[in-house]
Amino acid sequence: MQSLSFARRATHLSSAMPAAAPIDRISFDSGHAFPGVLPDLTGEAEDALSRFRPETLQYAPRAGLPELRQWISEYLAADGAQVPADNVLVTNGAKHAIELVCRALLDEGDSVVVTSPTYFSAIPIIRSFGAQFLEIPQDHDGMDVRALDDLLQQLARDRRPLPKFIYNISDFHNPTGATMPLERRHALLDLAVRHRIPVIDDSPYRSVRFEGEPVPTLKSLDRHDIVVHLGTFSKLLAPGLRVGWAAGATPLLARMAQLKTDAGSCPLTQRVVVEFCTAGRLARHTTRVQETYRAHRDRMAAAVRRELPDVTFAAPSGGYYLWLTLPAELDGEELTQRAGEAGVTIIAGSKFFARTDVEQPRNHVRLAFSHASIDEIDEGVHRLASAYHSLAAGAVATARTAR
Amino acid sequence: MQSLSFARRATHLSSAMPAAAPIDRISFDSGHAFPGVLPDLTGEAEDALSRFRPETLQYAPRAGLPELRQWISEYLAADGAQVPADNVLVTNGAKHAIELVCRALLDEGDSVVVTSPTYFSAIPIIRSFGAQFLEIPQDHDGMDVRALDDLLQQLARDRRPLPKFIYNISDFHNPTGATMPLERRHALLDLAVRHRIPVIDDSPYRSVRFEGEPVPTLKSLDRHDIVVHLGTFSKLLAPGLRVGWAAGATPLLARMAQLKTDAGSCPLTQRVVVEFCTAGRLARHTTRVQETYRAHRDRMAAAVRRELPDVTFAAPSGGYYLWLTLPAELDGEELTQRAGEAGVTIIAGSKFFARTDVEQPRNHVRLAFSHASIDEIDEGVHRLASAYHSLAAGAVATARTAR
Repeated sequence: MQSLSFARRATHLSSAMPAAAPIDRISFDSGHAFPGVLPDLTGEAEDALSRFRPETLQYAPRAGLPELRQWISEYLAADGAQVPADNVLVTNGAKHAIELVCRALLDEGDSVVVTSPTYFSAIPIIRSFGAQFLEIPQDHDGMDVRALDDLLQQLARDRRPLPKFIYNISDFHNPTGATMPLERRHALLDLAVRHRIPVIDDSPYRSVRFEGEPVPTLKSLDRHDIVVHLGTFSKLLAPGLRVGWAAGATPLLARMAQLKTDAGSCPLTQRVVVEFCTAGRLARHTTRVQETYRAHRDRMAAAVRRELPDVTFAAPSGGYYLWLTLPAELDGEELTQRAGEAGVTIIAGSKFFARTDVEQPRNHVRLAFSHASIDEIDEGVHRLASAYHSLAAGAVATARTAR
Repeated sequence: MQSLSFARRATHLSSAMPAAAPIDRISFDSGHAFPGVLPDLTGEAEDALSRFRPETLQYAPRAGLPELRQWISEYLAADGAQVPADNVLVTNGAKHAIELVCRALLDEGDSVVVTSPTYFSAIPIIRSFGAQFLEIPQDHDGMDVRALDDLLQQLARDRRPLPKFIYNISDFHNPTGATMPLERRHALLDLAVRHRIPVIDDSPYRSVRFEGEPVPTLKSLDRHDIVVHLGTFSKLLAPGLRVGWAAGATPLLARMAQLKTDAGSCPLTQRVVVEFCTAGRLARHTTRVQETYRAHRDRMAAAVRRELPDVTFAAPSGGYYLWLTLPAELDGEELTQRAGEAGVTIIAGSKFFARTDVEQPRNHVRLAFSHASIDEIDEGVHRLASAYHSLAAGAVATARTAR
């Protein structure tokens, strides 16, 4: 844990709070939902607060409402993973589950395997426990498991401590959009089992699929109870509900449940979710979400190809994001800065690299196509292109001056 | 943090989940609300999920909805404590705030000052960070600040590390019901300032007052930004909303905000709360809560005096609990066990003592008068009395045999 003294913690609360962007900005930065696809939950809430009032306004069981845990268990089973409801832990969103994993497993100085790049919100959580990052490169098939194998063998040869867990996003990786193929999933699990390292499969986007067939989840392939599967209703239903889960018949999950000392997650939002799901609304809503974000992806991909021909990206088959690779001489942080000035917010790729002690690629940015409307996507990419061209012109001028 | 290896964490998830009691049981154990006093929040939820939908179903600001932080700031100001909205951090209930305090301040082996007894749910949270407890006795005026002074002086003389924080419940202490008088509050703050030790004032019951005038909060007396005040809507409004707060213009609060990596607390429940409060409903509801629990306290106090004349207690002027002292030869855990068999659930006093390495008083039990109805209170105390008399008869028989 933090060992700063009381006297030295002299930061101000306001500095920890990002200011809201002006409303005329177009937001490609955060993974917010498109407002037009947010469901009407007033009926579920009315029910939850009248018929279920004695449940929804009292403390809930620590592990979650039994009916919700059962529903999640069946949802996972329909996707090939057999996890009894007893081994589903409802959390306050999936980030809460990541934090519980860290609380259960990490001591100061421990290490954690992440991809390079990785989910930028997981980085400060893991770092706040004093852990070190072991970054594994990835390609269009996700984490390079051979590189992980080499690293683990090297650590074993050097008698250095193994990582405490492997953090991965197997489906529609954030930020790269990559999905790991079956063979590589098997190889990752084999490695994890051989070295007895838990695998945390963070899977918020799995059902936000635009085309193609799903690859079996790590959990469905897990014969040794070494995978904890993290899920959430944030990306399918609504982020504001703060209902996620961790699932897996593993000792790690039991320890996470012990550390979940929050008097239970909110029973009101859990009841709203379970009523929505058991009424069959989630299945219909998922189709709407997929259609919406498929159209957003197509629109953004076309706009980027049209307006930014020098930029490369692999259009993902699901998820919320485009991961852009800029020409090597262009800096993603500078582009992010200029884009903000031009009225479109994006996230610099540098935020997605966990290690700060090595040189990292600087020529990436992440664009979320989830939140903005179709028209805003066109306008936002147009603004981004103007920022890009001013940056590129500067880079050309700089190169000329240097010549 | 925990240093157990993966392989040794072989507990089962189900064992971490207390089973629900049969419904014919009378519950004096947990601090649940009386179901009859739970408010109708359907109107607020309807509004929150229609008019405020783009807010309540998206991610919320990490520190909480600005209007709720502002309302809490004004609520504290009306109670004498000047805390700007910028220094109010909304949390998922007050327990979440305790956990954030621990994450911000504790390293393995650090120590924390608590009263003896103290709030039993704070104990596992603090313990899970590997901290040691420094127990300070209390009397009918709460924490014995002279004993704390002696302890801190002794630690300073021995050049041993000082505690990282002082955890206290100044108003209607859980479990004892004691409220700390003004003079002692000043003395506690003087000590904390002299040794530069943050004070966490956990105050869920302050507004659940049955009679008398409030003593100024520690926060309102805090001239050195050393107090973090914890509050919650759980005990006034509904535990299930999971909306609490930490307040104080202190570096500690800034660090807690940084560690709150949960993508914001639930904006839906925050909006329900702020609509309820700003419409003036909380003020009216507080009166109803006070009247309800005053009647519950009176009924339970009368029943205990009538049915258990050998038991002593100080009837509290607020809060949810009676703290019973049994005759010295009777064991609170045995009474709790027998009470459960007789159909009334209570909590053994031993759960409220933090240190496990010293002999602790065994002749206490805690009774919550909050959840049960007036009729259930009579019947529950009657059942408790039958358990008590069977235990006392056994104790007499044992004493005779031993003679």
